[in-house]
Formats: sequence, C-alpha cells, structure tokens
Amino acid sequence: TGVRRQGGVCHLPAWILLFLPIWSLSDGEKLLVIPLDGSHWFSMHSVVHQLRQRGHEIVAVVPEVSVQIQPSEHYTMETYSVPYTKEYLEAEFKRLGHQIFTPQPFLEKFTKTFARIGNIMTLLFSSCKQLLSNKELITYLKESAFDAVLMDPMFLCGQIVAEYLSLPSVYFSRGIPCGLEFQATQCPNSASYIPKFFTSYTDHMTFPQRMWNVLVSSSEFLSCSLLYSSHEELIREFLQQDVTVPELLSHASIWLLRYDFVFEYPRPVMPNMVLIGGINCGQEKPLSQEFESIVNASGEHGFVVFSLGSMVSEIPMKKAKQIAEAFGTIPQTVLWRYTGETPPNLANNTKLIKWLPQNDLLAHPKARAFITHGGSHGIYEGICNGVPMVLMPLFGDQMDNAKRIESRGAGVTLNVLEMTSKDLSDALNAVINDKSYKENIMRLSALHLDRPIHPLDLAVYWVEFVMRHKGAQHLRPAAHDLNWIQYHSLDVIAFLMAVVLVATFISLKCCLFCCRKCFCKKGRVSKSSKSKAE
Amino acid sequence: TGVRRQGGVCHLPAWILLFLPIWSLSDGEKLLVIPLDGSHWFSMHSVVHQLRQRGHEIVAVVPEVSVQIQPSEHYTMETYSVPYTKEYLEAEFKRLGHQIFTPQPFLEKFTKTFARIGNIMTLLFSSCKQLLSNKELITYLKESAFDAVLMDPMFLCGQIVAEYLSLPSVYFSRGIPCGLEFQATQCPNSASYIPKFFTSYTDHMTFPQRMWNVLVSSSEFLSCSLLYSSHEELIREFLQQDVTVPELLSHASIWLLRYDFVFEYPRPVMPNMVLIGGINCGQEKPLSQEFESIVNASGEHGFVVFSLGSMVSEIPMKKAKQIAEAFGTIPQTVLWRYTGETPPNLANNTKLIKWLPQNDLLAHPKARAFITHGGSHGIYEGICNGVPMVLMPLFGDQMDNAKRIESRGAGVTLNVLEMTSKDLSDALNAVINDKSYKENIMRLSALHLDRPIHPLDLAVYWVEFVMRHKGAQHLRPAAHDLNWIQYHSLDVIAFLMAVVLVATFISLKCCLFCCRKCFCKKGRVSKSSKSKAE
Repeated sequence: TGVRRQGGVCHLPAWILLFLPIWSLSDGEKLLVIPLDGSHWFSMHSVVHQLRQRGHEIVAVVPEVSVQIQPSEHYTMETYSVPYTKEYLEAEFKRLGHQIFTPQPFLEKFTKTFARIGNIMTLLFSSCKQLLSNKELITYLKESAFDAVLMDPMFLCGQIVAEYLSLPSVYFSRGIPCGLEFQATQCPNSASYIPKFFTSYTDHMTFPQRMWNVLVSSSEFLSCSLLYSSHEELIREFLQQDVTVPELLSHASIWLLRYDFVFEYPRPVMPNMVLIGGINCGQEKPLSQEFESIVNASGEHGFVVFSLGSMVSEIPMKKAKQIAEAFGTIPQTVLWRYTGETPPNLANNTKLIKWLPQNDLLAHPKARAFITHGGSHGIYEGICNGVPMVLMPLFGDQMDNAKRIESRGAGVTLNVLEMTSKDLSDALNAVINDKSYKENIMRLSALHLDRPIHPLDLAVYWVEFVMRHKGAQHLRPAAHDLNWIQYHSLDVIAFLMAVVLVATFISLKCCLFCCRKCFCKKGRVSKSSKSKAE
Repeated sequence: TGVRRQGGVCHLPAWILLFLPIWSLSDGEKLLVIPLDGSHWFSMHSVVHQLRQRGHEIVAVVPEVSVQIQPSEHYTMETYSVPYTKEYLEAEFKRLGHQIFTPQPFLEKFTKTFARIGNIMTLLFSSCKQLLSNKELITYLKESAFDAVLMDPMFLCGQIVAEYLSLPSVYFSRGIPCGLEFQATQCPNSASYIPKFFTSYTDHMTFPQRMWNVLVSSSEFLSCSLLYSSHEELIREFLQQDVTVPELLSHASIWLLRYDFVFEYPRPVMPNMVLIGGINCGQEKPLSQEFESIVNASGEHGFVVFSLGSMVSEIPMKKAKQIAEAFGTIPQTVLWRYTGETPPNLANNTKLIKWLPQNDLLAHPKARAFITHGGSHGIYEGICNGVPMVLMPLFGDQMDNAKRIESRGAGVTLNVLEMTSKDLSDALNAVINDKSYKENIMRLSALHLDRPIHPLDLAVYWVEFVMRHKGAQHLRPAAHDLNWIQYHSLDVIAFLMAVVLVATFISLKCCLFCCRKCFCKKGRVSKSSKSKAE
C-alpha cells in the first residue's frame, strides 16, 4: 500500500526519477521562504527540499528560536531575534499537554483555549514586529532579488514582506481557523452544508446544527478581526497603506491547500487553490533493525501504532495507566510514542518508544490500527497506508478531523478525558476486528492515492509556475473588485424592486384614474368610491 | 510554440511515450460513448482514441445520420435510426449560414434564433426517443456490462441510458447554454462577476450590465426548462421515476469541462469538475508540400489564416467580395477556407482552399493573424500557438468567446454583418502590426501551455478513474441533499429572526410592565402614558 508517485497516464517507474534532474532542471530561480514553526513546517519542508533539488536558491527567514525549523543544506537560514526563549516555548507546549488532560468546566476550558490562541497570536505578532524592524535583514532581502515568496498564511508577516518587496506569493496551508482562506480568495462558503472549524459537524447537518453553523459562520468575520486586527496597524506602519487583512491575503498568487476530498467534505474551490492533501505521505523507507524485530515478533495479530503528535509526548500518570490497562487486553503488540514515566501496569505487549518512524510503521502490512490525536499529517498517513484509526482529538482542528474519519466509517473517536480503559479496548477491538473499518479506510486510501500527479510534484510545479510567470494574475476572480453590496447584487435587486414598485404604483394610479373617469361619466357617485379604493 | 505534453516536474522527453503502453496499460475496461454530432465530437474523439490506445473496449452509440461521427477502428459503432436524413441536416447548416449573413431586425433575428434552437432540441429529443425505443440496441447495451458512460450532456439521452444501465457517467462539455452545468453540480454562479451565456459581457460589468446579467441569470432556470422540459416525460416513461433534468445531470461522476482560465474568467468550480480547455491543441504535424510551398512563398510578411469553422464554408457573394477586397490591401498571404464561388475581385495574395490544416498552419512561425468565427476549438488553437485573432462571431457562444479574447487585448472583434472592407483591413493591420496584440496572445499562450499535465491525459485519466472506482461519489457535495430553502439557510434565518422578534417583544413587554408598575406607584397617571407607549 505504498504511495504511487504518479498514477495512470503519468505512472512512471521509479528509475525515471533518476533522469529528472538531467533534463528538467529549471534555470534556478530564487525563492524566499517565510515559514511557521511547529507541525506546519513538516510538509512545507518537503517542498523546499524538492525545490532545492531542482536547482533553486532558497533563503528561509526564521525566528532565532524555533522548535522544528533547523539549519539545513537545503536553504540558507536568515534569523531574526524574537522576544521569547526556546525554554519558554517548550514550557508552553508542556503546559498545553497538561491542560488538555485536566478536566475543566466548559466555560473555563473555553476561556483558557481562547487565551491560548490569543497567546499564540501575540507571539506571532511580536515576531513579525521584530522581523520588520530588523533593518539589516530587510535591506538584505531587498537586495536579494527573489522571484517569489513561499509562506504560511497563519504568519501574516510573510505577505507584508512580499508586498514590501513587490513579490508574488504562494501560500502553504491546512486552513486558517476563522475561515480567512475563503474570505481572502472570494471562495463561496455556504454554511448550509460546509461545516465550520471547531463545530465537529459533518456535511449532513440537522436543523439545530445548521443553525449553529450559520451563527459560527457569521461570527467568523469577527473572530478573524480579533485574531489579526493588531496586525493592521503594523501593515499601515510598514507598507504605508490602508489595507485590511483579508485584502492583504487576497494578493496571494496560489494557495497550496492540504486538502483532499476523501478527507474533507466536497465544496466549491477557486482557480488559484491547488489541493495537495496527502503531500506528507512519502514512499515508506525500510524499518530499522530495532523496529523490524518488534514488528516481526508481533505474529499473526500484528501491531498497533500510538502517537499523540509532536506537541504532546507525555500525559498524566492516571491517564497513562488507564491506557496501558487497555493495551493489556488486546492481542496486538502496541508501539507507543511516549517520553513520560513508565506506567507501572504496562503489559508485555506494549513498547514505550521515544520516537517512531510513523509512516514507515503504518505502511507495514502488519499494522492493524493507528491511535492518533487526529492531526492532519497523521490522518493522511493513516489514509495513505489504509490503517483504520482510533482518534483521541486534543485541540485545534483535531475534533473536526476525527469527525471526518469517523463519518466515513474508517475510525472511532474517543473523548480522551472521559474515556475509560474499556472504551479504548472496545474501540481498538472494533477497528481491528470489524471488517467494515478496514474496508472503508482501504476504499479511502485507493481513491486518495489515485491521482494524476503526486501532491508534492504539484506543489513544486505551482511554486515554479509563480516564479516563472511572476504570479498568477489570470486566476484572480473579478469578485475582488466588487464591494459587498455589489457582490451580492443587492444594489441591482434594490433598483429592480424600486422599478417594480414604481411601475405598480403608476399602473395602479392609471387604473384608478380610468375607473374614476368611467364612474364620473356614469354619475357623480365617484367621491365615496375613490376614497374607498385608496 | 508547439504544445508541451507535460510541463515542469512531469516534463518528459517524447521518447518516454513509446514506453507508456508497455507498463501502464490498464486491464481493458469497457466504455460506452454516447456523443453529440457536430463540432462537439472533435475533441471528444481524441479522448476516445487515446482510451482505445490504452486497451479499453469502446462502443459508440450514434444516430444513423451523422455529419461528423464516422465509423472508425477506435470504436465499435452501434447506430439507431433517426427521423431525419443527412440531406436535411446539411440543408439546415446551409440555411443557418445564409441566415447569419442576412441583415434582419432584432426581433426577427431573436425569434429565428429561438426557433433554430427549438429545432435542434426537437431533433435531439426525437433522436433520444428513437434510441430508447430501440429494444434490440437497449438489450445489447444491457448485456454488454460496461464500466462507464462517456457522453455529451447536451444530449440528455446519455444520462437516461446510464441511469437505466446503473452505470457511472463522465460528461464532456464546453458548457450548456442555460448554465445547466452549474445548476447540476451545485456550483455557485454569482451573477455579479460571472457573465452569463449570450451576454457578451466581461467579468467587469457596469451597473446596467450587472442588472441585465442578474435578469438573464434568474431566467436561466426558465430557459433550461424550455429547452429540456420535453425530456422529463421521456425520463418518467423510460426510467419509471420522477426526476428533474438538473437532478438527472447531477448524477454525473465527473464533468470534463473545456475550460481554461486564460480564456474563461476565473470563477468557483466544484471538485468533480476537471478543466481540460485546450484539449484539442495537439502537437503540430508537418505541413503537406502544397501548404509548405504557399507558406514559404509568403516571405517576410508571413500569412493569415481565415476560417469560419466547420459549419459555415460559404457566404453570400456580396460579403465575400467585401472580404476579398480587404485582403487585397494587406501584404500578407491569406489562406481562406472557402467552398463557395470565387469572388471576382480576389487579390493575388489570397488563396481559396477547401480544407485547411488549421492547427498546423497556426503553429507555423510565419502565421501572423487568425481570422476566426470564434468557435472554442479555433480560439484554443489560436491561444496554443500564440497567434493574434480577428474575430467574426456568427452564433451561439461565439460572441462571448470573441469578447473574452478582445478583453484580453489579444484580438479585435468585428460584426460580420455591419463591417466594411476597411474595418477588416484595419483590424488585420492592428493585430499584425500593433505589438501589444502579439505580446498579449503570447502571454496567454505561455500561461495556457504551462500546466502540470496535458488536458488530453487528464481527461483520459479521469475517465479511467471513474471506470476503476465505479464513479466518484466522494466528490459529490452534500448540497445535493438540501432543498432550495435549506441550501440558502432561509429556514435558519427565519427561525433566528422569529427568535429575535419574540425576544424583543417579550423584553419590551417586560419593560412596559415594569414602567407601568413604577408609574402606578407614583400615582394614577398611568393610563394615558401606557396608551402612548404602545
């Protein structure tokens, strides 16, 4: 079940790739990369790597303090100072992990989540401020004559720099929580069948769900403002122009969206949206000796992979014991990515491991189930390799992601706070032994992998397209040049209604006039009838 | 300026294609093709050809009387009788040609156009009736166990047959005049920046234009009904179910749309729309000796290609003389596809030719301009080869097509009825000598040809996809399961408004009650104040 690099018509044998650099290398353009730290960097990095391989010069502008972005031979790294330390960031992640596993009343949870998002936005804002005020760096960028900017739109700063350097930009994104990607691209976003972020609805909603979805949808404008309003002053200051955040983001040439419709619900898209969901699923590499022997020892029952993602690697002991207990009840071997203290009740079939080659393990034919927090990278690896999932969503888009997989019958979602040991072992037994889960994930996998061109190649192609043509202006819809009233044709409707009203009024008056004439002729009874008619 | 089969990442040398059949041949599925006669068949045929080459078995069901669809080694042809003759069809085309070049008052033109469309629809309807009542053919189709149906949605019959045989379908289309492709796919189709068929507007409209566009848009539902309502009874009769035409067409798995955004205006699209505009531009073939010598003799001034398409090959003598006169004033050689009587004033630089290898001529570096009726096939050939155009739209979508090219500054549109000889020579001189036209068409050409996969390969890929997976259900938006009121969230809005009204009413009542209480205490003056407040 490995990934096909090219399907059908363009399905080439692997050795062809060896020839690629010889005759398809570009002239070597110059790309500026302004990434966002964290898991966002994972798949963006593979695009950067590929672009470097194809002969382009790449400069990455990154904060001095990063968790995931490391110096690399693939790019020149230019750093700027930030008002926080690595220790602070790591402590924040730990606090996040702890907070998730602490039961809290809804309101407290809500305000804490909101505070956390606010905190992230403040970090991004202050980083941006530092970047823009770094005169030396800005001068260097100005003199470097780049061809385009590749950036994460969550970190608005990239577009401010692109604007300042008059460069076309390509965005790489999984989506912006307040739906800014649809606002900024003028992409229709009906609330009646497109579930909004954080609602955990499917595309088939009941009346109350649709109502809540409409309310969330109409508040998106507000939440975007809350998140990004602070940036508008920065834009004004640095670019010397009055431009709103959606307007600024509307200048993107191409949006590379980590979307695929076996996972996302079908919806309208715009011409400058390129869907590259599953870009992170690479060809599996052979397992190391260590993992190979564990996996082979798992026998006919196979094994289960358990990871809560890059941000949460330890959990409170009470929860860990509960989970360990559940694992003891299943015949499969469990590979658990865990850096915390070993739970005392850990069964023999469970191996705690500090780091897992997740995709390579999932690609192994003995992989029976995947217990995941529901981050989009992990989920796509589950889909690519056709492994049914048990989902324990923790925060962010993970609830929505889990719901999508569950609604396709390819996994079971658990509430990590409320679940019991039995819930987990039941869920595992279900996805492993009930054939429908395996069938559904295999169907999704087959559809997902059957594409005319691999998402990584597609992403590279469009970045190069933007560098070659200095943008993609021909994909920009004219809707950007209309205001809200014009876009919805409200002025036209108002005018047409006025015309109809006036026409009705005049014809009514004419009728009355005629009637009166008639009545007048018949006799002088007109007065009372006229007043009645009016 | 030849066509690149594969660009960028997937840009392979031509010899690679020699290897393709060896390792990429499919199992050989069975495809039913239900085409539409006329120019619609041109590019659909290339897909059928390619699919045959890839080992699929293809059966084409065509009317006994066809103008363009011929027996071929690429498919088994199954015919059904139709209530018209080839002579009748050819006479109809001649009448059409004549009608176009006869000046008529607007109203007469309008009614005649409408009658013509009505006539075509009646022909299609009666063909469909004949097909469905051909018991022998239907039994054969039933027993043939096809994997999918490839069809032109203008000929609804294809979907009726697909439905009857429970087969997934792929549509191949340039669009349906009443915008049925957007209705049937639930594709948002804003009237504020998407010009409707037959309006000849661009995507930037004035207020009166937007108004007319809204009116046309709201009448589309009606015109679709007018065009296809007769079919609904046929559907009821043959399929034994009550289903509207848009509903029937919504069952398509994939829409292969001859769209490209260098030509069409950017607009939302749906996940099951695959854009294959420019599919007809193949690699140019070497010119025959005859054409090679004409072209070489044209010297430094080069040559102009003139064709009014496959349906109109002769025009009234008065117009022909006018055109011949204009050609005498330019230094370029003119290659004129013409089957009528030679105009007496034909200049030496003009060659009348019964058939032109249009694409190969346009691909020649000496091609200076292309005079075309603005059919979509011709226009894409002009774009692919980067030849500026003089457009003489005659009917159908040609006015719209001409406007698109003109609005991009890549051509000049003439009114074929009203133009003088001087207008034509001015237009030719402009597109040949004013560099901006050449620059603009070259820009469009570069953008159009720069794509990760050739449209023909893409079309073939998706037909095979539908055959492999028995459809593409995962691309069907949930919007299809909502009614009109739900889709626009009108029920939610009504409910929310009711809640707000009731809440306002209750709180107002409460206020009044409190006020009254207060006033009551202060004295018995309440009565008058209460009646005022209410």
